[in-house]
Amino acid sequence: MTKVNKNYLKLPGSYLFSQIGKKVRAYEAAHPEKKVIRLGIGDVTQPIAPKVLSALHTAVDEMGHEETFRGYAPDLGYAFLRDVIARKDFQERGMAVAADEIFISDGVKCDCGNIQEIFSTENTIAVQDPVYPVYVDSNVMAGRGGQYDPSLQRFDQVIYLPCTRENGFVPELPARVPDLIYLCFPNNPTGAVMTKDQLQEWVDYANRNGSVLLYDAAYEAYISQPDIPHSIYECSGAGTCAIEFRSFSKTAGFTGLRLGYTVIPKTVKAEGVALWDLWARRHGTKYNGAPYIIQRAGEAVYSAEGRKQIQDQIAWYMGNAKIIADGLREAGYEVSGGVNAPYIWMRTPGHRTSWEFFDELLEQANVVGTPGAGFGPHGEYYLRLTAFGNRENTIEAVNRIKAL
Amino acid sequence: MTKVNKNYLKLPGSYLFSQIGKKVRAYEAAHPEKKVIRLGIGDVTQPIAPKVLSALHTAVDEMGHEETFRGYAPDLGYAFLRDVIARKDFQERGMAVAADEIFISDGVKCDCGNIQEIFSTENTIAVQDPVYPVYVDSNVMAGRGGQYDPSLQRFDQVIYLPCTRENGFVPELPARVPDLIYLCFPNNPTGAVMTKDQLQEWVDYANRNGSVLLYDAAYEAYISQPDIPHSIYECSGAGTCAIEFRSFSKTAGFTGLRLGYTVIPKTVKAEGVALWDLWARRHGTKYNGAPYIIQRAGEAVYSAEGRKQIQDQIAWYMGNAKIIADGLREAGYEVSGGVNAPYIWMRTPGHRTSWEFFDELLEQANVVGTPGAGFGPHGEYYLRLTAFGNRENTIEAVNRIKAL
Repeated sequence: MTKVNKNYLKLPGSYLFSQIGKKVRAYEAAHPEKKVIRLGIGDVTQPIAPKVLSALHTAVDEMGHEETFRGYAPDLGYAFLRDVIARKDFQERGMAVAADEIFISDGVKCDCGNIQEIFSTENTIAVQDPVYPVYVDSNVMAGRGGQYDPSLQRFDQVIYLPCTRENGFVPELPARVPDLIYLCFPNNPTGAVMTKDQLQEWVDYANRNGSVLLYDAAYEAYISQPDIPHSIYECSGAGTCAIEFRSFSKTAGFTGLRLGYTVIPKTVKAEGVALWDLWARRHGTKYNGAPYIIQRAGEAVYSAEGRKQIQDQIAWYMGNAKIIADGLREAGYEVSGGVNAPYIWMRTPGHRTSWEFFDELLEQANVVGTPGAGFGPHGEYYLRLTAFGNRENTIEAVNRIKAL
Repeated sequence: MTKVNKNYLKLPGSYLFSQIGKKVRAYEAAHPEKKVIRLGIGDVTQPIAPKVLSALHTAVDEMGHEETFRGYAPDLGYAFLRDVIARKDFQERGMAVAADEIFISDGVKCDCGNIQEIFSTENTIAVQDPVYPVYVDSNVMAGRGGQYDPSLQRFDQVIYLPCTRENGFVPELPARVPDLIYLCFPNNPTGAVMTKDQLQEWVDYANRNGSVLLYDAAYEAYISQPDIPHSIYECSGAGTCAIEFRSFSKTAGFTGLRLGYTVIPKTVKAEGVALWDLWARRHGTKYNGAPYIIQRAGEAVYSAEGRKQIQDQIAWYMGNAKIIADGLREAGYEVSGGVNAPYIWMRTPGHRTSWEFFDELLEQANVVGTPGAGFGPHGEYYLRLTAFGNRENTIEAVNRIKAL
């Protein structure tokens, strides 16, 4: 008699963004005359950069001729893409990451969700609180969560690292040592960053205790201040304890194209086993590579022209971030983030819960934010807004919130 | 102290096709003057059909304008693609599969590898022997394999269903009831098919015993004979016990574009839980959708023009299959498959092991096949050849083998 994976049944409710989507669709169906502005899900709105588009067209043409047609991609990604990533993102910035330590994938969400598979289910995990829900959910599905306590909104086996206004949304080193530590900087949802010295402390902590750091740097391209590390490999010793996730989604508007990569230095080991070997085995067995045409699009992101176009786009989004942060501050809201990340983290007014404030914004201002509580218990009393809307909508959304 | 998933360490050697790739690259490096013909890995060689190419270009253009740009896809796939699949692949063929029972993905390898996650690790699995290695490997990684016995080349917890020349490569119903039963028809690697009556027996067996059938129909487009089911939902009762996997890779040459889908009727349950809910949760949490442009390419496959172009391609590949099967029979080899599948299953001559014969073919004929033993112990003494080469190479490969 077939049994299901009962760990799935421990997950409370549906995935955060699916839940928001349902609420918004229901509101729109009931109020078709209202123009709802989405500053909720972190989805980009600017079109793909011209240089990337032209790479896509060229690659599509190649697929139409037998001589240039490409079938299955190499398991771990095409060399043309792995090489340029290693060179531009790491080696030219003084980090010793090799091309064969780069694993190309269809996005960092998949990689962040799947990476836990190569570790024992007995491992304990630590996550920032609040944080991107995939880290906890994927571990709960694998049985590392323990039991969910609805009153605490926590799983009893997970080590939560509170990120609060008091600590500037940067967690303290935990007293009880986790085996796997997820860090996301620039942070989703708070927009907070760590300085290089702060991150170095985590690297030292991991090496001292035999923990592995799972570093999600999906938003590194949005860093605008100096002394903020773009990669964990800027810290000394990271090559023996850290895996890094990178995304093209926010860097180059690839949310609908799907491309990301994971870095596993061959020197990162657990119980003497190179994690590189395990992840390569997972890729070889359960994955079949990102589409050729999308990998060519990724390559174009690193060309001089592509880089320029993409930087302009990021600057443009960060213009939105400034409009939101400045506008809300003017209106008396408590706001952080938006300087090194496309996320603005606002405190709900009048001690409303984040879902209450979400509903209020949706119904009264027709603006969609993301309830902070969806990112973890310490996200309660916050709402995340994103800089990914278009300019006109962003300005209008801020004006509507001001007018509440 | 971080621990690894020790189940990974139980897997013998690397993934079959990675291993073949390494051997071939080594041979080519040592003998740069030789022209190696690959009839090993099941990768297509014909260019993408014109109608699909044009859909790709159009979709790429859409990504270049703000009004038509698409970011994150809906979790389970775009409605335009799920609708046309439900209609053309099922409803118009008399099956009651609904659009929202279709889950779009980046390929059937991923789905076949990931589906086991929604089941308990206590479940027992059954697989055809020989068969596509992903079913066993993905379950071993999750802990359902037990221990590997190198002398038997088997995992002691897996129920192997022998497919031999004696049973026409169609397995018998197992005496010990498995919880999860993987069936692959048309079969990879043997090319064998089941009649509808035979498949109905499996559906009845699963319903009687509370097992779930995981039916891989990646090669259904190659079926040329009547009374061979293209989908398990042609059998009565499949809607309460069967999940089906479908691929665009071999149907439409998408091995490098990556697109597939999984069908889970809402009526398939285990322990009272709808498997649809669990798989939807997995998609929502650990996956982010196939690229928009690729989903548009998939849609074009169902247009009248696209369908015609693709059928011509399949007929052309099956021409290769006939050349291989006829040629090898002429030369005195024992051969099956190649009629309803793009695979030819040849018995090794002189009782050579399949890896011995692989090496001999590579070194003496410069032809790459796939050693049958890589698909399971009952694949020993066989080699798989594929019909996916180009015509000229296929003819030359057959002539070289004849000349051995």
